[in-house]
Amino acid sequence: MRVLGIDPGLAIIGFAVADNSGGKPVHLRHGVIRTPAGEPLEQRLMTIHDDLSELIETFRPQEAAIERLYFNKNVTTGIPVAHARGIILFTLAKSGIPISEYSPQDVKMAVTGYGNAEKMQIIEMTKQLLSLKARPKPDDAADALALAVCHIHTSGSLLYGGKING
Amino acid sequence: MRVLGIDPGLAIIGFAVADNSGGKPVHLRHGVIRTPAGEPLEQRLMTIHDDLSELIETFRPQEAAIERLYFNKNVTTGIPVAHARGIILFTLAKSGIPISEYSPQDVKMAVTGYGNAEKMQIIEMTKQLLSLKARPKPDDAADALALAVCHIHTSGSLLYGGKING
Repeated sequence: MRVLGIDPGLAIIGFAVADNSGGKPVHLRHGVIRTPAGEPLEQRLMTIHDDLSELIETFRPQEAAIERLYFNKNVTTGIPVAHARGIILFTLAKSGIPISEYSPQDVKMAVTGYGNAEKMQIIEMTKQLLSLKARPKPDDAADALALAVCHIHTSGSLLYGGKING
Repeated sequence: MRVLGIDPGLAIIGFAVADNSGGKPVHLRHGVIRTPAGEPLEQRLMTIHDDLSELIETFRPQEAAIERLYFNKNVTTGIPVAHARGIILFTLAKSGIPISEYSPQDVKMAVTGYGNAEKMQIIEMTKQLLSLKARPKPDDAADALALAVCHIHTSGSLLYGGKING
Protein backbone atom coordinates (compact mmCIF):
# COMPACT_ATOMS: atom_id res chain seq x y z
CA MET A 1 0.00 0.00 0.00
CA ARG A 2 1.46 3.36 -1.09
CA VAL A 3 0.76 6.44 1.03
CA LEU A 4 0.91 10.12 0.08
CA GLY A 5 1.40 12.44 3.07
CA ILE A 6 0.46 16.10 2.58
CA ASP A 7 1.15 19.13 4.75
CA PRO A 8 -1.36 21.65 3.34
CA GLY A 9 -0.46 25.26 2.56
CA LEU A 10 -0.87 27.92 -0.10
CA ALA A 11 2.71 29.18 -0.67
CA ILE A 12 4.31 25.83 0.13
CA ILE A 13 2.76 22.35 0.29
CA GLY A 14 4.83 19.52 1.74
CA PHE A 15 4.47 16.07 0.21
CA ALA A 16 5.88 12.63 0.99
CA VAL A 17 5.50 9.25 -0.67
CA ALA A 18 6.11 6.10 1.37
CA ASP A 19 5.20 2.44 1.04
CA ASN A 20 3.58 0.49 3.84
CA SER A 21 5.69 -2.66 4.01
CA GLY A 22 3.91 -4.85 6.56
CA GLY A 23 3.31 -1.89 8.89
CA LYS A 24 6.80 -0.45 8.36
CA PRO A 25 7.19 2.76 6.34
CA VAL A 26 9.60 2.68 3.37
CA HIS A 27 10.68 6.07 2.00
CA LEU A 28 10.23 6.82 -1.69
CA ARG A 29 10.22 10.60 -2.13
CA HIS A 30 9.60 13.88 -0.32
CA GLY A 31 9.53 17.49 -1.40
CA VAL A 32 7.37 20.58 -1.76
CA ILE A 33 5.03 22.24 -4.23
CA ARG A 34 5.48 26.02 -4.27
CA THR A 35 3.19 28.76 -5.59
CA PRO A 36 4.43 32.33 -6.21
CA ALA A 37 3.09 34.91 -3.71
CA GLY A 38 2.61 37.52 -6.45
CA GLU A 39 0.14 35.46 -8.48
CA PRO A 40 -3.66 35.68 -8.16
CA LEU A 41 -5.13 33.15 -5.71
CA GLU A 42 -7.01 31.24 -8.44
CA GLN A 43 -3.79 30.83 -10.45
CA ARG A 44 -1.99 29.45 -7.38
CA LEU A 45 -4.87 27.01 -6.80
CA MET A 46 -4.53 25.78 -10.40
CA THR A 47 -0.79 25.26 -9.88
CA ILE A 48 -1.47 23.18 -6.74
CA HIS A 49 -4.00 21.07 -8.63
CA ASP A 50 -1.71 20.53 -11.63
CA ASP A 51 1.44 19.74 -9.63
CA LEU A 52 -0.40 17.43 -7.25
CA SER A 53 -2.10 15.64 -10.17
CA GLU A 54 1.33 15.08 -11.75
CA LEU A 55 2.66 13.71 -8.47
CA ILE A 56 -0.31 11.31 -8.20
CA GLU A 57 0.18 10.18 -11.79
CA THR A 58 3.89 9.53 -11.17
CA PHE A 59 3.65 7.66 -7.86
CA ARG A 60 0.08 6.27 -7.94
CA PRO A 61 -0.53 6.41 -4.15
CA GLN A 62 -3.47 4.34 -2.89
CA GLU A 63 -4.10 6.30 0.30
CA ALA A 64 -3.53 9.87 1.47
CA ALA A 65 -2.87 11.39 4.89
CA ILE A 66 -3.38 15.12 5.40
CA GLU A 67 -3.11 17.42 8.39
CA ARG A 68 -6.36 18.56 9.96
CA LEU A 69 -6.79 22.34 9.86
CA TYR A 70 -7.60 24.25 13.02
CA PHE A 71 -9.37 27.55 12.61
CA ASN A 72 -7.99 28.82 15.90
CA LYS A 73 -4.41 28.15 14.85
CA ASN A 74 -3.97 31.32 12.81
CA VAL A 75 -7.14 32.82 11.36
CA THR A 76 -5.26 35.31 9.17
CA THR A 77 -3.42 32.62 7.21
CA GLY A 78 -6.12 30.02 7.87
CA ILE A 79 -8.47 31.21 5.12
CA PRO A 80 -5.96 31.10 2.20
CA VAL A 81 -4.63 27.75 3.45
CA ALA A 82 -8.22 26.42 3.59
CA HIS A 83 -8.71 27.50 -0.05
CA ALA A 84 -5.60 25.49 -0.95
CA ARG A 85 -6.61 22.54 1.23
CA GLY A 86 -9.96 22.42 -0.60
CA ILE A 87 -8.08 21.97 -3.89
CA ILE A 88 -5.85 19.29 -2.37
CA LEU A 89 -8.85 17.28 -1.06
CA PHE A 90 -10.63 17.72 -4.40
CA THR A 91 -7.59 16.58 -6.40
CA LEU A 92 -7.12 13.47 -4.23
CA ALA A 93 -10.83 12.60 -4.30
CA LYS A 94 -10.99 13.05 -8.08
CA SER A 95 -8.23 10.45 -8.35
CA GLY A 96 -10.22 8.10 -6.10
CA ILE A 97 -7.67 8.22 -3.27
CA PRO A 98 -9.20 7.75 0.22
CA ILE A 99 -8.15 10.55 2.59
CA SER A 100 -7.35 10.27 6.30
CA GLU A 101 -7.00 13.36 8.48
CA TYR A 102 -4.63 13.63 11.42
CA SER A 103 -4.13 16.31 14.04
CA PRO A 104 -0.59 17.42 14.98
CA GLN A 105 -1.11 15.49 18.25
CA ASP A 106 -2.02 12.31 16.34
CA VAL A 107 1.22 12.66 14.34
CA LYS A 108 3.35 13.29 17.43
CA MET A 109 1.86 10.28 19.20
CA ALA A 110 2.16 7.93 16.21
CA VAL A 111 5.74 8.94 15.34
CA THR A 112 7.34 9.44 18.76
CA GLY A 113 4.84 7.74 21.09
CA TYR A 114 4.55 11.06 22.94
CA GLY A 115 1.73 13.57 22.23
CA ASN A 116 3.71 16.61 23.35
CA ALA A 117 6.92 15.86 21.41
CA GLU A 118 8.98 18.80 20.13
CA LYS A 119 9.24 19.47 16.39
CA MET A 120 12.89 18.39 16.28
CA GLN A 121 12.11 15.09 18.03
CA ILE A 122 9.49 14.30 15.37
CA ILE A 123 11.87 15.14 12.52
CA GLU A 124 14.67 13.06 14.09
CA MET A 125 12.32 10.09 14.69
CA THR A 126 10.93 10.35 11.13
CA LYS A 127 14.51 10.29 9.81
CA GLN A 128 15.30 7.14 11.82
CA LEU A 129 12.05 5.33 10.98
CA LEU A 130 12.58 5.95 7.27
CA SER A 131 16.36 5.27 7.40
CA LEU A 132 17.14 8.66 5.86
CA LYS A 133 20.78 9.76 5.72
CA ALA A 134 19.96 13.37 6.66
CA ARG A 135 17.16 15.24 8.38
CA PRO A 136 14.41 15.82 5.79
CA LYS A 137 14.05 19.43 4.59
CA PRO A 138 12.25 21.79 4.39
CA ASP A 139 9.94 21.53 7.43
CA ASP A 140 6.85 21.19 5.22
CA ALA A 141 8.29 18.07 3.54
CA ALA A 142 9.37 16.71 6.96
CA ASP A 143 5.80 17.25 8.24
CA ALA A 144 4.43 15.39 5.22
CA LEU A 145 6.81 12.47 5.90
CA ALA A 146 5.67 12.40 9.53
CA LEU A 147 2.05 12.30 8.32
CA ALA A 148 2.81 9.36 6.03
CA VAL A 149 4.56 7.51 8.89
CA CYS A 150 1.63 8.35 11.21
CA HIS A 151 -0.84 6.93 8.67
CA ILE A 152 1.15 3.73 8.19
CA HIS A 153 1.54 3.20 11.95
CA THR A 154 -2.14 3.98 12.58
CA SER A 155 -3.38 1.71 9.77
CA GLY A 156 -1.21 -1.03 11.28
CA SER A 157 -2.77 -0.65 14.74
CA LEU A 158 -6.27 -0.76 13.30
CA LEU A 159 -5.40 -3.90 11.37
CA TYR A 160 -4.07 -5.64 14.50
CA GLY A 161 -7.09 -4.39 16.44
CA GLY A 162 -9.33 -5.98 13.82
CA LYS A 163 -7.47 -9.26 14.07
CA ILE A 164 -7.74 -9.35 17.85
CA ASN A 165 -11.46 -8.67 17.72
CA GLY A 166 -12.14 -11.04 14.84
CA MET B 1 -20.99 40.48 -21.57
CA ARG B 2 -22.45 37.67 -19.43
CA VAL B 3 -21.80 37.69 -15.70
CA LEU B 4 -21.94 34.83 -13.18
CA GLY B 5 -22.47 35.98 -9.59
CA ILE B 6 -21.55 33.54 -6.83
CA ASP B 7 -22.29 33.60 -3.12
CA PRO B 8 -19.78 31.05 -1.79
CA GLY B 9 -20.69 28.36 0.73
CA LEU B 10 -20.26 24.66 1.44
CA ALA B 11 -23.84 23.45 2.11
CA ILE B 12 -25.42 26.00 -0.22
CA ILE B 13 -23.86 28.10 -2.99
CA GLY B 14 -25.94 30.86 -4.55
CA PHE B 15 -25.53 31.55 -8.26
CA ALA B 16 -26.93 34.12 -10.68
CA VAL B 17 -26.51 34.65 -14.39
CA ALA B 18 -27.14 38.12 -15.85
CA ASP B 19 -26.21 39.91 -19.04
CA ASN B 20 -24.63 43.34 -19.07
CA SER B 21 -26.72 45.22 -21.62
CA GLY B 22 -24.99 48.59 -21.95
CA GLY B 23 -24.42 48.87 -18.20
CA LYS B 24 -27.92 47.58 -17.34
CA PRO B 25 -28.29 44.09 -15.83
CA VAL B 26 -30.64 41.65 -17.58
CA HIS B 27 -31.71 38.60 -15.57
CA LEU B 28 -31.20 35.14 -17.03
CA ARG B 29 -31.23 32.65 -14.15
CA HIS B 30 -30.65 32.30 -10.43
CA GLY B 31 -30.57 29.37 -8.05
CA VAL B 32 -28.42 27.35 -5.67
CA ILE B 33 -26.06 24.40 -5.66
CA ARG B 34 -26.52 22.24 -2.56
CA THR B 35 -24.24 19.62 -1.02
CA PRO B 36 -25.51 17.10 1.58
CA ALA B 37 -24.23 17.70 5.13
CA GLY B 38 -23.72 13.99 5.76
CA GLU B 39 -21.21 13.49 2.94
CA PRO B 40 -17.41 13.66 3.36
CA LEU B 41 -15.97 17.12 2.67
CA GLU B 42 -14.04 15.96 -0.42
CA GLN B 43 -17.23 14.50 -1.94
CA ARG B 44 -19.06 17.80 -1.38
CA LEU B 45 -16.17 19.68 -3.03
CA MET B 46 -16.44 17.39 -6.08
CA THR B 47 -20.19 18.08 -6.27
CA ILE B 48 -19.54 21.84 -6.22
CA HIS B 49 -16.95 21.49 -8.99
CA ASP B 50 -19.20 19.31 -11.15
CA ASP B 51 -22.38 21.38 -10.73
CA LEU B 52 -20.54 24.67 -11.27
CA SER B 53 -18.81 23.27 -14.36
CA GLU B 54 -22.20 22.27 -15.77
CA LEU B 55 -23.57 25.74 -15.08
CA ILE B 56 -20.60 27.34 -16.85
CA GLU B 57 -21.03 25.01 -19.83
CA THR B 58 -24.74 25.85 -20.07
CA PHE B 59 -24.53 29.64 -19.73
CA ARG B 60 -20.97 30.39 -20.88
CA PRO B 61 -20.42 33.43 -18.62
CA GLN B 62 -17.48 35.67 -19.58
CA GLU B 63 -16.90 37.22 -16.15
CA ALA B 64 -17.51 36.17 -12.56
CA ALA B 65 -18.23 38.12 -9.38
CA ILE B 66 -17.75 36.44 -6.01
CA GLU B 67 -18.09 37.60 -2.43
CA ARG B 68 -14.87 38.27 -0.55
CA LEU B 69 -14.44 36.09 2.53
CA TYR B 70 -13.70 37.62 5.90
CA PHE B 71 -11.94 35.43 8.40
CA ASN B 72 -13.39 37.42 11.30
CA LYS B 73 -16.96 36.91 10.08
CA ASN B 74 -17.39 33.45 11.55
CA VAL B 75 -14.21 31.45 12.03
CA THR B 76 -16.06 28.21 12.82
CA THR B 77 -17.87 28.09 9.48
CA GLY B 78 -15.14 30.12 7.72
CA ILE B 79 -12.76 27.19 7.20
CA PRO B 80 -15.22 24.81 5.44
CA VAL B 81 -16.55 27.73 3.35
CA ALA B 82 -12.97 28.63 2.38
CA HIS B 83 -12.41 25.02 1.24
CA ALA B 84 -15.49 25.37 -0.98
CA ARG B 85 -14.51 28.85 -2.17
CA GLY B 86 -11.13 27.44 -3.26
CA ILE B 87 -12.95 24.95 -5.51
CA ILE B 88 -15.19 27.70 -6.91
CA LEU B 89 -12.20 29.94 -7.78
CA PHE B 90 -10.37 26.95 -9.28
CA THR B 91 -13.36 25.90 -11.40
CA LEU B 92 -13.85 29.44 -12.74
CA ALA B 93 -10.14 29.91 -13.45
CA LYS B 94 -9.92 26.53 -15.20
CA SER B 95 -12.68 27.75 -17.54
CA GLY B 96 -10.70 30.95 -18.19
CA ILE B 97 -13.29 33.20 -16.53
CA PRO B 98 -11.81 36.36 -14.93
CA ILE B 99 -12.91 36.73 -11.29
CA SER B 100 -13.76 39.96 -9.45
CA GLU B 101 -14.16 40.00 -5.69
CA TYR B 102 -16.56 42.28 -3.84
CA SER B 103 -17.13 42.92 -0.14
CA PRO B 104 -20.70 43.02 1.24
CA GLN B 105 -20.22 46.82 1.49
CA ASP B 106 -19.25 47.05 -2.20
CA VAL B 107 -22.46 45.17 -3.07
CA LYS B 108 -24.66 47.36 -0.84
CA MET B 109 -23.18 50.52 -2.31
CA ALA B 110 -23.42 49.37 -5.94
CA VAL B 111 -26.98 48.04 -5.64
CA THR B 112 -28.63 50.58 -3.32
CA GLY B 113 -26.17 53.49 -3.36
CA TYR B 114 -25.92 53.15 0.43
CA GLY B 115 -23.11 51.18 2.13
CA ASN B 116 -25.14 50.37 5.24
CA ALA B 117 -28.29 49.16 3.49
CA GLU B 118 -30.36 46.42 5.16
CA LYS B 119 -30.56 42.96 3.60
CA MET B 120 -34.22 43.43 2.62
CA GLN B 121 -33.46 46.76 0.87
CA ILE B 122 -30.78 45.03 -1.24
CA ILE B 123 -33.11 42.18 -2.17
CA GLU B 124 -35.93 44.61 -3.05
CA MET B 125 -33.59 46.81 -5.13
CA THR B 126 -32.14 43.75 -6.89
CA LYS B 127 -35.69 42.64 -7.74
CA GLN B 128 -36.50 46.07 -9.21
CA LEU B 129 -33.22 46.44 -11.14
CA LEU B 130 -33.70 43.00 -12.72
CA SER B 131 -37.48 43.47 -13.26
CA LEU B 132 -38.25 40.27 -11.35
CA LYS B 133 -41.89 39.51 -10.55
CA ALA B 134 -41.11 38.25 -7.03
CA ARG B 135 -38.34 38.64 -4.49
CA PRO B 136 -35.54 36.20 -5.43
CA LYS B 137 -35.18 33.17 -3.12
CA PRO B 138 -33.39 31.70 -1.28
CA ASP B 139 -31.14 34.39 0.25
CA ASP B 140 -28.01 32.77 -1.24
CA ALA B 141 -29.41 33.14 -4.77
CA ALA B 142 -30.51 36.72 -3.98
CA ASP B 143 -26.98 37.50 -2.78
CA ALA B 144 -25.56 36.07 -6.00
CA LEU B 145 -27.93 38.25 -8.05
CA ALA B 146 -26.85 41.32 -6.06
CA LEU B 147 -23.20 40.40 -6.77
CA ALA B 148 -23.91 40.16 -10.50
CA VAL B 149 -25.68 43.54 -10.43
CA CYS B 150 -22.81 45.00 -8.41
CA HIS B 151 -20.30 43.75 -10.97
CA ILE B 152 -22.28 45.12 -13.91
CA HIS B 153 -22.73 48.53 -12.24
CA THR B 154 -19.08 48.66 -11.22
CA SER B 155 -17.81 47.64 -14.68
CA GLY B 156 -20.11 50.32 -16.12
CA SER B 157 -18.67 53.05 -13.89
CA LEU B 158 -15.14 52.08 -14.83
CA LEU B 159 -16.07 52.18 -18.50
CA TYR B 160 -17.59 55.65 -18.21
CA GLY B 161 -14.61 56.76 -16.12
CA GLY B 162 -12.37 55.57 -18.93
CA LYS B 163 -14.35 57.51 -21.50
CA ILE B 164 -14.24 60.72 -19.46
CA ASN B 165 -10.50 60.44 -18.98
CA GLY B 166 -9.86 59.41 -22.56
